[in-house]
Amino acid sequence: MHKEKLSIIKIGGNIVEDENLLIEFLQLFAGLKGKKILVHGGGKKATQIASRLGIESKMINGRRITDSSTLEVITMVYGGLVNKNIVAKLQFLGIDAIGLTGADINSIESIKRPVKDIDFGFVGDVKNVANESIKKLIEADFTPIFCAITHDGKGQLLNTNADTIASKIAVSMSKSYEIKIYYCFELNGVLEDFTNKNSVIKLINKEKYSRLLKQQKITDGMIPKIDNCFDALQNGVHKVYIGNTNMFTKESDNFTTLVL
Amino acid sequence: MHKEKLSIIKIGGNIVEDENLLIEFLQLFAGLKGKKILVHGGGKKATQIASRLGIESKMINGRRITDSSTLEVITMVYGGLVNKNIVAKLQFLGIDAIGLTGADINSIESIKRPVKDIDFGFVGDVKNVANESIKKLIEADFTPIFCAITHDGKGQLLNTNADTIASKIAVSMSKSYEIKIYYCFELNGVLEDFTNKNSVIKLINKEKYSRLLKQQKITDGMIPKIDNCFDALQNGVHKVYIGNTNMFTKESDNFTTLVL
Repeated sequence: MHKEKLSIIKIGGNIVEDENLLIEFLQLFAGLKGKKILVHGGGKKATQIASRLGIESKMINGRRITDSSTLEVITMVYGGLVNKNIVAKLQFLGIDAIGLTGADINSIESIKRPVKDIDFGFVGDVKNVANESIKKLIEADFTPIFCAITHDGKGQLLNTNADTIASKIAVSMSKSYEIKIYYCFELNGVLEDFTNKNSVIKLINKEKYSRLLKQQKITDGMIPKIDNCFDALQNGVHKVYIGNTNMFTKESDNFTTLVL
Repeated sequence: MHKEKLSIIKIGGNIVEDENLLIEFLQLFAGLKGKKILVHGGGKKATQIASRLGIESKMINGRRITDSSTLEVITMVYGGLVNKNIVAKLQFLGIDAIGLTGADINSIESIKRPVKDIDFGFVGDVKNVANESIKKLIEADFTPIFCAITHDGKGQLLNTNADTIASKIAVSMSKSYEIKIYYCFELNGVLEDFTNKNSVIKLINKEKYSRLLKQQKITDGMIPKIDNCFDALQNGVHKVYIGNTNMFTKESDNFTTLVL
């Protein structure tokens, strides 16, 4: 059966917190043809507001600990300030956007991460994506804009990694659509040489990935990101792209494509 | 043609900012049969957060002036904190809630209030309600939860009176549904004698309203509220109720019903 195409685009804090970069990205996003979903983080903006409210941002091994005050800030910043401004700007650009957390239409249900060595607090690991409900919005010609918040189904909101949200939505929606995921970040793609921003590796398949890992060309932070991508590819996602926001434009071929 | 019923419930800051009152209300709301929409304010919570962020709340003649910092706080508090917590709690109560500002699905477009004597700042007067888009959500069995924010269609969010939002949505949706509006507030209803909380006027029609106005039994704050109600009734809304949150329960008949 031929499936309709659906693009899932994830943007990170670097785009969200720079007004000019964000507008530039939203114009590209608005111009992207076909059905689409946006997933956004909001990182530093939450840290700024937290600090202005006198809430200390606690990090362990570079990962944020989400206590109840921090969750309040995240709900305000990701779910309110960032998400609703993106929605308003997209409406102006002719996209019939609808902003969502995982609580809305029960779209993403998570489990509060169990405490082992570290108590991450109100952090959720995705358990279920309500693909049929999300499909209703898409088929009504609405464009879902997800922030990085899910819920536990018992009334509790949970802070959740935006990369993971994008990949879990993608896998779940692949039942109905041919899915491409675009991970936008500050680099042009996965780099062969981290000191040379033009050394983008154009294509990575499983075999190439193993080789790059052995050669230690792919390092710490990038490993879970790429593992996440291959996980999506192995579970029904058609293609995954990693690059800067220009990868939507026809002019650019300077990004990384991941295939099985 | 027989129209399906749709209830529109508006709650104010007094319910939103009291965790216990809110839970109690949401249980009643969840138990209310049939299709429904919730509209909420968020008043004092925004003032609290603004004050913690060092933003002064400016009021002129008891009305809030929404400068850009205040709009940020309102977007965070109404659109994020309050709205998303209500949505998560309703999901737990079995209601497939979806939180919205007027920017989402372009549901409520406003005009920034023109500056005459007072510059109210980023405040919107409702221009258009996208009843067909809201209907798509309702017919998909989602329950829309609106906060008191609209947009101008040009990328700008606008602070908007929640009573007005409820009544404008009601009028617009009356094309497809038989509409009842429930305005929940801290009193039991419109009072004959303001010093006696049990002196609820059970029924007010246009004639009775004129008489009450002449007798000066209805005073300042209540006049625009009731004018708003009669405006809705004259434009297609079936019934309007004013009372406390118990008016949903079969036990209570202690509230005010407005009819033409």
